[in-house]
Amino acid sequence: MIFIQELREGLHVSRVFLCKQKVQGTSKAGKSYYSLKLQDKTGQIDAKVWELNNAIEHFENNEYIFVEADITTFNGALQANVKRIRRARDGEYDEKDFLPVSDQSVEAMYTELMALKDKIENPRLKALVESFYVEDQEFIAAFKDHSAAKSVHHNFIGGLLQHTLAVTSICYFYCKRYPVLNKDLLLTAAMFHDIGKLRELSDFPDNDYTDEGQLIGHIVIGYEMVKTRIDRSPGFPKKLATELLHCILAHHGEMAYGSPKMPSLIEALALHHADDTDAKMEIMIEEFEKTGSQDFLGVNRFLGTNIRKTSKSE
Amino acid sequence: MIFIQELREGLHVSRVFLCKQKVQGTSKAGKSYYSLKLQDKTGQIDAKVWELNNAIEHFENNEYIFVEADITTFNGALQANVKRIRRARDGEYDEKDFLPVSDQSVEAMYTELMALKDKIENPRLKALVESFYVEDQEFIAAFKDHSAAKSVHHNFIGGLLQHTLAVTSICYFYCKRYPVLNKDLLLTAAMFHDIGKLRELSDFPDNDYTDEGQLIGHIVIGYEMVKTRIDRSPGFPKKLATELLHCILAHHGEMAYGSPKMPSLIEALALHHADDTDAKMEIMIEEFEKTGSQDFLGVNRFLGTNIRKTSKSE
Amino acid sequence: MIFIQELREGLHVSRVFLCKQKVQGTSKAGKSYYSLKLQDKTGQIDAKVWELNNAIEHFENNEYIFVEADITTFNGALQANVKRIRRARDGEYDEKDFLPVSDQSVEAMYTELMALKDKIENPRLKALVESFYVEDQEFIAAFKDHSAAKSVHHNFIGGLLQHTLAVTSICYFYCKRYPVLNKDLLLTAAMFHDIGKLRELSDFPDNDYTDEGQLIGHIVIGYEMVKTRIDRSPGFPKKLATELLHCILAHHGEMAYGSPKMPSLIEALALHHADDTDAKMEIMIEEFEKTGSQDFLGVNRFLGTNIRKTSKSE
Amino acid sequence: MIFIQELREGLHVSRVFLCKQKVQGTSKAGKSYYSLKLQDKTGQIDAKVWELNNAIEHFENNEYIFVEADITTFNGALQANVKRIRRARDGEYDEKDFLPVSDQSVEAMYTELMALKDKIENPRLKALVESFYVEDQEFIAAFKDHSAAKSVHHNFIGGLLQHTLAVTSICYFYCKRYPVLNKDLLLTAAMFHDIGKLRELSDFPDNDYTDEGQLIGHIVIGYEMVKTRIDRSPGFPKKLATELLHCILAHHGEMAYGSPKMPSLIEALALHHADDTDAKMEIMIEEFEKTGSQDFLGVNRFLGTNIRKTSKSE
Amino acid sequence: MIFIQELREGLHVSRVFLCKQKVQGTSKAGKSYYSLKLQDKTGQIDAKVWELNNAIEHFENNEYIFVEADITTFNGALQANVKRIRRARDGEYDEKDFLPVSDQSVEAMYTELMALKDKIENPRLKALVESFYVEDQEFIAAFKDHSAAKSVHHNFIGGLLQHTLAVTSICYFYCKRYPVLNKDLLLTAAMFHDIGKLRELSDFPDNDYTDEGQLIGHIVIGYEMVKTRIDRSPGFPKKLATELLHCILAHHGEMAYGSPKMPSLIEALALHHADDTDAKMEIMIEEFEKTGSQDFLGVNRFLGTNIRKTSKSE
Amino acid sequence: MIFIQELREGLHVSRVFLCKQKVQGTSKAGKSYYSLKLQDKTGQIDAKVWELNNAIEHFENNEYIFVEADITTFNGALQANVKRIRRARDGEYDEKDFLPVSDQSVEAMYTELMALKDKIENPRLKALVESFYVEDQEFIAAFKDHSAAKSVHHNFIGGLLQHTLAVTSICYFYCKRYPVLNKDLLLTAAMFHDIGKLRELSDFPDNDYTDEGQLIGHIVIGYEMVKTRIDRSPGFPKKLATELLHCILAHHGEMAYGSPKMPSLIEALALHHADDTDAKMEIMIEEFEKTGSQDFLGVNRFLGTNIRKTSKSE
Repeated sequence: MIFIQELREGLHVSRVFLCKQKVQGTSKAGKSYYSLKLQDKTGQIDAKVWELNNAIEHFENNEYIFVEADITTFNGALQANVKRIRRARDGEYDEKDFLPVSDQSVEAMYTELMALKDKIENPRLKALVESFYVEDQEFIAAFKDHSAAKSVHHNFIGGLLQHTLAVTSICYFYCKRYPVLNKDLLLTAAMFHDIGKLRELSDFPDNDYTDEGQLIGHIVIGYEMVKTRIDRSPGFPKKLATELLHCILAHHGEMAYGSPKMPSLIEALALHHADDTDAKMEIMIEEFEKTGSQDFLGVNRFLGTNIRKTSKSE
Repeated sequence: MIFIQELREGLHVSRVFLCKQKVQGTSKAGKSYYSLKLQDKTGQIDAKVWELNNAIEHFENNEYIFVEADITTFNGALQANVKRIRRARDGEYDEKDFLPVSDQSVEAMYTELMALKDKIENPRLKALVESFYVEDQEFIAAFKDHSAAKSVHHNFIGGLLQHTLAVTSICYFYCKRYPVLNKDLLLTAAMFHDIGKLRELSDFPDNDYTDEGQLIGHIVIGYEMVKTRIDRSPGFPKKLATELLHCILAHHGEMAYGSPKMPSLIEALALHHADDTDAKMEIMIEEFEKTGSQDFLGVNRFLGTNIRKTSKSE
Repeated sequence: MIFIQELREGLHVSRVFLCKQKVQGTSKAGKSYYSLKLQDKTGQIDAKVWELNNAIEHFENNEYIFVEADITTFNGALQANVKRIRRARDGEYDEKDFLPVSDQSVEAMYTELMALKDKIENPRLKALVESFYVEDQEFIAAFKDHSAAKSVHHNFIGGLLQHTLAVTSICYFYCKRYPVLNKDLLLTAAMFHDIGKLRELSDFPDNDYTDEGQLIGHIVIGYEMVKTRIDRSPGFPKKLATELLHCILAHHGEMAYGSPKMPSLIEALALHHADDTDAKMEIMIEEFEKTGSQDFLGVNRFLGTNIRKTSKSE
Repeated sequence: MIFIQELREGLHVSRVFLCKQKVQGTSKAGKSYYSLKLQDKTGQIDAKVWELNNAIEHFENNEYIFVEADITTFNGALQANVKRIRRARDGEYDEKDFLPVSDQSVEAMYTELMALKDKIENPRLKALVESFYVEDQEFIAAFKDHSAAKSVHHNFIGGLLQHTLAVTSICYFYCKRYPVLNKDLLLTAAMFHDIGKLRELSDFPDNDYTDEGQLIGHIVIGYEMVKTRIDRSPGFPKKLATELLHCILAHHGEMAYGSPKMPSLIEALALHHADDTDAKMEIMIEEFEKTGSQDFLGVNRFLGTNIRKTSKSE
Repeated sequence: MIFIQELREGLHVSRVFLCKQKVQGTSKAGKSYYSLKLQDKTGQIDAKVWELNNAIEHFENNEYIFVEADITTFNGALQANVKRIRRARDGEYDEKDFLPVSDQSVEAMYTELMALKDKIENPRLKALVESFYVEDQEFIAAFKDHSAAKSVHHNFIGGLLQHTLAVTSICYFYCKRYPVLNKDLLLTAAMFHDIGKLRELSDFPDNDYTDEGQLIGHIVIGYEMVKTRIDRSPGFPKKLATELLHCILAHHGEMAYGSPKMPSLIEALALHHADDTDAKMEIMIEEFEKTGSQDFLGVNRFLGTNIRKTSKSE
Repeated sequence: MIFIQELREGLHVSRVFLCKQKVQGTSKAGKSYYSLKLQDKTGQIDAKVWELNNAIEHFENNEYIFVEADITTFNGALQANVKRIRRARDGEYDEKDFLPVSDQSVEAMYTELMALKDKIENPRLKALVESFYVEDQEFIAAFKDHSAAKSVHHNFIGGLLQHTLAVTSICYFYCKRYPVLNKDLLLTAAMFHDIGKLRELSDFPDNDYTDEGQLIGHIVIGYEMVKTRIDRSPGFPKKLATELLHCILAHHGEMAYGSPKMPSLIEALALHHADDTDAKMEIMIEEFEKTGSQDFLGVNRFLGTNIRKTSKSE
């Protein structure tokens, strides 16, 4: 299969795409047509279906469709002029080819995360973590597939895992650097800090805000997911539970960024810094990966300033 | 019993006080003494125990103590010179005489609130409200006694009820003014919006932030109290639940004020305005009640400006 | 007459429109043409006049014109292809058909407002209010026709009356809820708070900022309108006058929102909350009226967050 | 007369003071006494009246009193131990000796201001300025005596004149530097920009916020003083009037600083910069005049940073 | 030569332009073409080169090219349809005709600046200033040619000189108004305050941020330029050097505007106000020069409000 | 020697103290006395010298003095009643006993920092670092002794080294986590980021802001120290130099926090996060070290919220 990044004007393609957008329009001549956005993991291409005849089967947004089309250019950009469409059949395609994925192996990252989990000594906390990350197969499957964002950073399959691993790993380093930190509490909080995103964002290929995500948000959802599990664990120390839940609630660091409380405990403070560091680093990394330019790329709206890649050392 | 507001220099008193503060000091001569703050519902008076002999029984902060003392003045303020102290016995005092109370009848206010509750027609929401306000005796007792704040506004017994009644009442008025509002949703949200304060603030006479209050806060606690109850109600519509919980989370109106989400629904917006209006009005009312002055009272730190009572009409 | 909302491709129309915009352009072939925005109370439609011959009489922006045109589509939107234009004659049209209007009866609202006015007992204040709302026919006529905004909220004929009525009504409710409020002062202030908009915004169909509106603003204009009238009323108590004028000046609540003073009196505080509540509620209501969507509508720039209609109860 | 700055421990004084503060206290022994703040133009001294016998006549705050006292020290500061007090008689004292005054001659400053006034060529504006500054004797007398602030900067007799002169003078310089400026408009606005302070602050020796000053503020008062006078001048061009009044309203530059409008005209912008420059410069100058120190003086609350005098050049 | 402002549809031109932008595109038919922006001092015009044949020599951005083209209109704007291009030869054009220039004479402004320089009496400071402005020919040439900004204000040849002269001149006026100012220090600081722009912005015709400009900025570059020169001057007083360098660093007035320190010295405060005044005035002046409109021009993004020209006096 | 923390009422001491403050006062009886603050590394004690006879030799602030005194209590705090004072002689005391010191070994920390330095491979950068940290003995001695702050965090001997080591160590960890980072650039920037504090703060025992520290600040001083050294290194790549200097300037992350530029390079971003993390963590650690309390400690002014130690795990 030729991926979108490899398409050139003049080619004819017969392959499966993920249809990310389908809009019906009417030409000046009063005729209906479709404007589509077709996607695979290498990018997106605009497509037009000018003739809505019976070579065009019914399909919806976010469906996999088998497309025959000629590749042309319009206003300097490639465009697929579609002749035939039908829904793709199971087995004809592999989801991984159509969705953005982490460039790191999901399984390797999960193994690394489990190794960090094993540093937790407190049996209460370890059992709590394992009730999600070892025993709950539905959670594990969803966690491995999920993104950490709709856009911004880590918005790809495995993104939530990759971010969670990075944050937990930074926290583990902090524990060695600052012995005052309660390692068990901090590692547990790091592993749970963003699990609310499993309900805030829908699964791929949709990867968009859910109603609960919009109205409640991953911080409070994550709080509730952990609180509910703790409540089922008789004898879990009240103060420890409150401290763990506080770390989850406070991890955005400022109320203005959606944390209902600012960090009052040193583990909450450490978690916030680990989370913020990985988020900001990843934003810059993802911007740089999009371009070969060594020049300034313009003001980045999340970082608030003009950024450029560091020069190659001479 | 002569209340604190009625005490004058030269009197001798033998009565019960609530001891709000007890600090041990050492005089220049190296002798130990106690500095106390004694309270009843009319105010506070400083007290000194210069002789720590066996006329002074053991007691702690926030205990009711029977005191014999002479009233003197020091630096222009009254001071009790204490001769004897013993812990007060059950029956010797009525808590209501020692703690700040609403100047409105708790029972009358509760009755008014229940009348508003009866305006809720949706059976799911009505049942949810009644599971707290009608069936849960422990909740009802605590709710009637609680304040709505440590300081700021409504920081007295019955304060939470008074504020909840005011907010619910304003919301009911809004429902008549703006027919687009979902009355059942808004009344339910109004009655639940601050119930997290039952766990955020400890009971009287302490009325101070709990550990959970500091680390989690009443917004998220209230969310969880209602969510847990909904989860026990099979078939409760998911979307309605999310909307109700959103109203609770968003009622501070701005993330910078501790709401993890801003109001996205018109009932959340209305609830925020009702809550904000009653809070600000009560702040001004309580400031005015403290003074007979018709002059400017100085910059109020919650209102951000200099305030004064409106002149009497001529 | 077929209203704009009912037009369909292929129709031919011969009717009056309000011309909201007239721009002259030049085609690639070097020929002059007009681009117009035609309006009635149901919406707007783009129009083109390709042939500027003697079938096209002279006309200006904001004039009523009689148009003959064919309805076509361009880029998926309807467009009127104009053949003839002449200025409309008096009697050919009714202004109310061409301008946005309140969906409530202006006369019914005015009657409701007068009933609230009659709650004012202080003879000085009542006389002051009546000197505008009962005796000043020019004021009354303008007040009934005016909008409360160029855009944002209440930007329709009767909008200023509708908003003033809502605010006064909310204030009257506050007076019952908070007996400390000086009812006469608050009702008077509510009725006057936005009358400066009569000079800030020009009359319909223009409804745009005047020079005085841009440079002085409705807050100070309103202050001056009332102050001038008070100065003509010998013996009006100085302190009461200052308090009333303060309420007008402070009704935006914050200096950053254009009030030169923050509310120092409890009536000013109450007025600010009533005004803010009605403005924010109306913003959301007007957004919802524009759409049938039950989804999130995107971030609203006045409310600062993503909004959606509340779900229908099940 | 020995001024306060010259008093030393051990002296006995018999002279007039301005009494800025009079507080009655009760000693430990239950005896009444007075704590006073006595003032002349060189500073203030604390005083105690321990014996309230018939050598102490009745007097009030802000009255001139003839005092006999011994100068002692208490806690390292001088204190007057008062033996006799009576109200001072007319002719016994000169107000100028007791109130802070500009170190520049009021008459010389006024002459300089009138010379700037004569640069105004537009007859309408010149007449308007002269109706205050030449014809209105009550205005002239008040303007020469008034301060420009309760504290902060220019809080002395002649302060309003000194600040107005400085601002007008800077504006005149701007007119030469930036020919685009309408000199007549800018000079007129400069001369009027702070005249609202005549009603915002009471006269000396009180020099405190009036009720109108607190509730309306000098910006809107000044607007009204000029608007009222313009309204009495038939045929005054409407647009010119609005522009002049805009300059007065916008002179604080930002809504958050109390201007209901930001500068939209270049003369309003220029006036704001002239006003801001003179205010900030004077704040620093007055801080430096209070001290002989060449070290850093601590963070100044109006300037927001630590300040020090520039070193003497070597 | 016909300047761009004078071009009309139908003309044929054969003349030199500065090419500010050259973008290669592909037509729907798959053919390459160039889109150019051609500039002279009177403005810019879009141009298309549809036939990339051997009549089109190689050229780059920011080069001077000799162009033969027909003037047409497209979408209501003029467009040059280019037939031939070759690089312009030395002597065929005068740079001053192609770049925006100050409307004041560079030499006259420099002479005025030198006259202000001669007001500096301190020999150390005068020598320091002259080491740049009298002795350093490379500096002088660059300073005369440079802009003071990429966009915003003074973004033309001679702009840095014009702004420096205005600021120095305002500062000299302040010295007369506020005798406390150290005239020598302030004039020196004024002349140096923006010289870092010589390295922050590249020379014309590029006039864009350099790498050092983006990463270090003119404030710190200017600090370093002066500090390096001082370090070569043995015996320069340490305190005086620190004060001068502080004025340069603090001239933006607020840390949030890029000054690493706020003004702590009165000369730094004065310099900030002079710089801010001239910058804001020039922004408004340049906006007004772009238009003949007497109406409001819309919200200016640097001034934060809607602006208009002042009316002509009647 | 009995340290200050061990002193008790009734003791008599004869030992050396560091005199941190010496103020002369006058008693009510007109007699001169001294109020002193005496310090050793365990804390401070107030002292009074009531008799200024010839047993009291001359001494100044920040001098080491040999004191004979009785320990008493006043207002519940210990106070030294001084009988004799003379300046301490060399050899009588060890500075380390009198100044706050890091609880980590300076030499061990320096060795660890040098090991990180050896990770730098780029010969230019390594040589630059070694020109300070290996070859410049004066720099090395000062760096080992210096604090990183007057107050806030790391305000003790060795504090600058401890903070620099922590930041460099965190950066080295980031390099392993984020391979995109230029390790040599980041480690170099980390080692240099705060060296400007050597001139911003004076040496112990003073440890206060210098004039240059107040007026220029450590960010720009550090920039200049490194820039000057680079300028002496012919052939140092211009772009690399600019990037390194940018990292130093941008390390506070926000302009409002004193960085004249925000981080544009990923190494600058990483350095900012490492610096911010270590600063905030150390603030909390130092607060916790001051107290044995497990309760909330009140709102910390640097962290902006109420903090408490995490509970001991059960």
